Amino acid sequence: MKQDRRRTTFSGRLVMLGFGSIGQAMLPVLPRELGVEPSRVRIVKPTPDETGIAAQHGVEVITTALSEGNHEAVLEPLLGEGDFLLNLSVDVSSLALIRFCRKRGAFYLDTCNEPWPGRYDDPRLTPSQRSNYSLREEALAYRLDKRSGPTAVLTQGANPGLVSAFTKRALLDMAQQTGLKVERPTCYEEWAALARQLQVKVIHIAERDTQTSDRRKAPGEFVNTWSVAGFADEGLQPAELGWGSHERHWPEDAGRHGFGCDAAVYLNRPGIATRVRSWTPLEGPYHGFLVTHAESISIADHLTLRENGQVVYRPTVHYAYHPCDDAVLSLHEMAGRNWQLQHRHRIIRDEISGGIDELGVLLMGNPKGVYWYGSRLSVEQARALVPHNNATSLQVVAGILGGMVWALRNPDAGLVEPDDLDHETVLEAALPFLGDVVGQWGDWTPLQGRSELFPEATDPADPWQFINFRVT
Amino acid sequence: MKQDRRRTTFSGRLVMLGFGSIGQAMLPVLPRELGVEPSRVRIVKPTPDETGIAAQHGVEVITTALSEGNHEAVLEPLLGEGDFLLNLSVDVSSLALIRFCRKRGAFYLDTCNEPWPGRYDDPRLTPSQRSNYSLREEALAYRLDKRSGPTAVLTQGANPGLVSAFTKRALLDMAQQTGLKVERPTCYEEWAALARQLQVKVIHIAERDTQTSDRRKAPGEFVNTWSVAGFADEGLQPAELGWGSHERHWPEDAGRHGFGCDAAVYLNRPGIATRVRSWTPLEGPYHGFLVTHAESISIADHLTLRENGQVVYRPTVHYAYHPCDDAVLSLHEMAGRNWQLQHRHRIIRDEISGGIDELGVLLMGNPKGVYWYGSRLSVEQARALVPHNNATSLQVVAGILGGMVWALRNPDAGLVEPDDLDHETVLEAALPFLGDVVGQWGDWTPLQGRSELFPEATDPADPWQFINFRVT
Ligand SMILES: NC(=O)c1ccc[n+]([C@@H]2O[C@H](COP(=O)([O-])OP(=O)(O)OC[C@H]3O[C@@H](n4cnc5c(N)ncnc54)[C@H](O)[C@@H]3O)[C@@H](O)[C@H]2O)c1
Ligand SMILES: NC(=O)c1ccc[n+]([C@@H]2O[C@H](COP(=O)([O-])OP(=O)(O)OC[C@H]3O[C@@H](n4cnc5c(N)ncnc54)[C@H](O)[C@@H]3O)[C@@H](O)[C@H]2O)c1
Repeated sequence: MKQDRRRTTFSGRLVMLGFGSIGQAMLPVLPRELGVEPSRVRIVKPTPDETGIAAQHGVEVITTALSEGNHEAVLEPLLGEGDFLLNLSVDVSSLALIRFCRKRGAFYLDTCNEPWPGRYDDPRLTPSQRSNYSLREEALAYRLDKRSGPTAVLTQGANPGLVSAFTKRALLDMAQQTGLKVERPTCYEEWAALARQLQVKVIHIAERDTQTSDRRKAPGEFVNTWSVAGFADEGLQPAELGWGSHERHWPEDAGRHGFGCDAAVYLNRPGIATRVRSWTPLEGPYHGFLVTHAESISIADHLTLRENGQVVYRPTVHYAYHPCDDAVLSLHEMAGRNWQLQHRHRIIRDEISGGIDELGVLLMGNPKGVYWYGSRLSVEQARALVPHNNATSLQVVAGILGGMVWALRNPDAGLVEPDDLDHETVLEAALPFLGDVVGQWGDWTPLQGRSELFPEATDPADPWQFINFRVT
Repeated sequence: MKQDRRRTTFSGRLVMLGFGSIGQAMLPVLPRELGVEPSRVRIVKPTPDETGIAAQHGVEVITTALSEGNHEAVLEPLLGEGDFLLNLSVDVSSLALIRFCRKRGAFYLDTCNEPWPGRYDDPRLTPSQRSNYSLREEALAYRLDKRSGPTAVLTQGANPGLVSAFTKRALLDMAQQTGLKVERPTCYEEWAALARQLQVKVIHIAERDTQTSDRRKAPGEFVNTWSVAGFADEGLQPAELGWGSHERHWPEDAGRHGFGCDAAVYLNRPGIATRVRSWTPLEGPYHGFLVTHAESISIADHLTLRENGQVVYRPTVHYAYHPCDDAVLSLHEMAGRNWQLQHRHRIIRDEISGGIDELGVLLMGNPKGVYWYGSRLSVEQARALVPHNNATSLQVVAGILGGMVWALRNPDAGLVEPDDLDHETVLEAALPFLGDVVGQWGDWTPLQGRSELFPEATDPADPWQFINFRVT
């Protein structure tokens, strides 16, 4: 009964923009989970689909590169009232597509808030202008006078996306397991109050991808488990983090934006040149890259409490990404070449010989310990669940699916972020694709086990200061 | 005729201390190149030789761990007048062995100036006490009143070792190719004067090891092409560099020793946490690790010119090591664990599927460009030349052989460093084992191709300032 009631289907037309690692991973799920009719799906991408996967699934490919000049003309015949634009491309402006979908009355979802090309890597722009913060503020400004209308879900993949739901779930778990009696929060201030009550000072998106292929990274090649272009783009944006109210050491390379929600700051260096200490239950302590991500800003903003216009509580939130080993080597090589992206790119999927993606949120500051909540998905599990996937892509697919289900059930919500979605709806749709989903306490702190051989800048009085996480 | 005249043989007893990757690599060379009789060789190491290589070469193994307490007693029956102690171990004091050999009238050679265990990683010692600088100063102090006696060659492998000869050869090449009329220098001041005349401001030991095995580094495993213990030891010493007279930006984490030759400084952080920009002809620009090495200090010291007690010329000299890819990943993991060395170690040799060791010196500052001189040795070449080798070990073997030949021809030289040896003698013995030995000019500078996206601390007025090499 319940099953039936909650089955969400989509019978409109669907345009999938871009058909790279995530598009290919998502395609098989659309008919299976949402009853999408392949003949009603169009893929739009700049070049023909050489993988054969679109044809195999009976889906037509329109080979066009969307640009600022042509995107409305290309999409107009394909999308009308109640149709769905699933944007899984790079280098196409999310906000431009959202504007268009609103005019057409179509649903929209993406997994990354992208600008038109040239914004991430234009040295004439300030770090603030190249930040995700500024992209988000533009979206928030756009929706100022639009609190409803066709639902457009911004940045709903795994992270950003699912991790906002993980965070809520983790907060509820922690409340329950520390004996707090709480009602399920109903608005963001209540979530923030719960986080404050749980003494959460820092939240990491703590991810360790251990997937490897037998074919090693070659010289001059960038290898990753998802978009190389996407990773390089975000990796060369300034490192960004939600800046917690407990922080008392201002990083000398940090900057505030001077406008907008002020929940996040940037560091004047690339995320892929910025290492932080983090921890996952299976990997243990590791160094991750503090790559900017939409969730670092939106989660921090949604967990902010104000009193008399003053911020009285906000956690520090950021990504601590340990990509797959060959991506670590790719970054090392790219660093040696002054961040010139290698010409050869390889996204590993079918050639992966083993490994998992351990992706979750790590909530820190509660006296009981740190709490990690997330997905452990092996490449074998991923393949058994949906073809054309590795562990990383299927976690993204799970987030997209959760977002689509929520959108279809809430068709008039206007522009929303992952934090605006009901986390239970998202998780219910996503969980079957996430392998082992676990919550686990740990006693790790970023001060634990420091070597005594060399001095390190730390604040021993509060382990949860950013200065203690940062690797210098 | 010439061939015959220069053939150097050794008919005494030889003790090889330690039988790890370098010992095994060296063993086949001793009879072949120096006419050493296997029955006159003893290997001393703490555990039996499980590789079977010693037995295969007809060499007896004495299973004893040398210590401060037992080393004289163990070695006394094995070494007398005219015998040879080849120290290829870790954790045995070089200076203790040198003292002993002098008493016994025996030759001595090692490839690393080692202390007894516990000195590299004792946090109660100052960085200066844990430095190679201090180990070298102790050796220099020891030889203060001993300018002759049985020859003891300290730190004569590939680097330290061979690279001191490469440096001299590179200086002569550069002189010739820039049209300088110079006599072959006969003492260190003349070499230093030549380096100054050539405007050499910086010398890197620029090494890129591309060797890989099909079996990837596993979690919790440290993989390298030579001693894991040796690499971890030196990697956790403070980063050290010969400090050039042209340097005008004092690094805030640098320290002077306040005693001794003052040719080098240390940074108050581990070498494996210190990245620098460098360049080799085949790899191009890369990030290497500034790991302390004896040659950084001894080459800088030997290329120092003084006037009226003032240093008027010295190049900056340091290592810029890009170890094999799996070692880069091992270091990344080890960093995440606060420099706790992984428990599982794997030295790859027979399982290597390809790659080369591109090892040379990079001399910078001359108006014609940078000049790299060194060895490009592939694993296939190495195997074809001597069994039980990879490219890295054979370059070390070449340096050891060069040092042994020099020692046997100069039996009463007392304690010497690589810089004291005649580079032609060393190179003549070493060259057959080094694959392609090339000198190559380049137009690289550490300021070349910098990304404009983020500010970086540089001194644009002089590319050869350390601040321009250092990665922050
Ligand atoms: N939120 C998350 O968890 C998450 C995870 C992974 C990827 N992503 C994002 O998903 C997006 C897709 O990732 P991917 O791994 O599939 O990337 P990919 O590089 O494999 O594929 C990108 C696709 O976009 C297409 N494309 C490029 N320019 C285009 C244009 N002008 N018009 C139309 N299509 C164009 C390409 O042809 C390709 O098919 C990226 O933005 C990435 O950042 C998000
Ligand atoms: N200068 C160079 O170019 C260069 C290059 C590589 C290695 N090295 C040095 O050469 C040495 C050997 O390197 P490796 O790769 O063969 O190392 P390894 O780790 O493979 O082997 C070390 C050997 O030392 C032995 N040993 C350890 N403790 C001992 C003790 N107390 N008494 C006797 N033997 C003991 C071990 O049993 C082992 O056989 C190291 O000091 C290393 O730093 C120098």
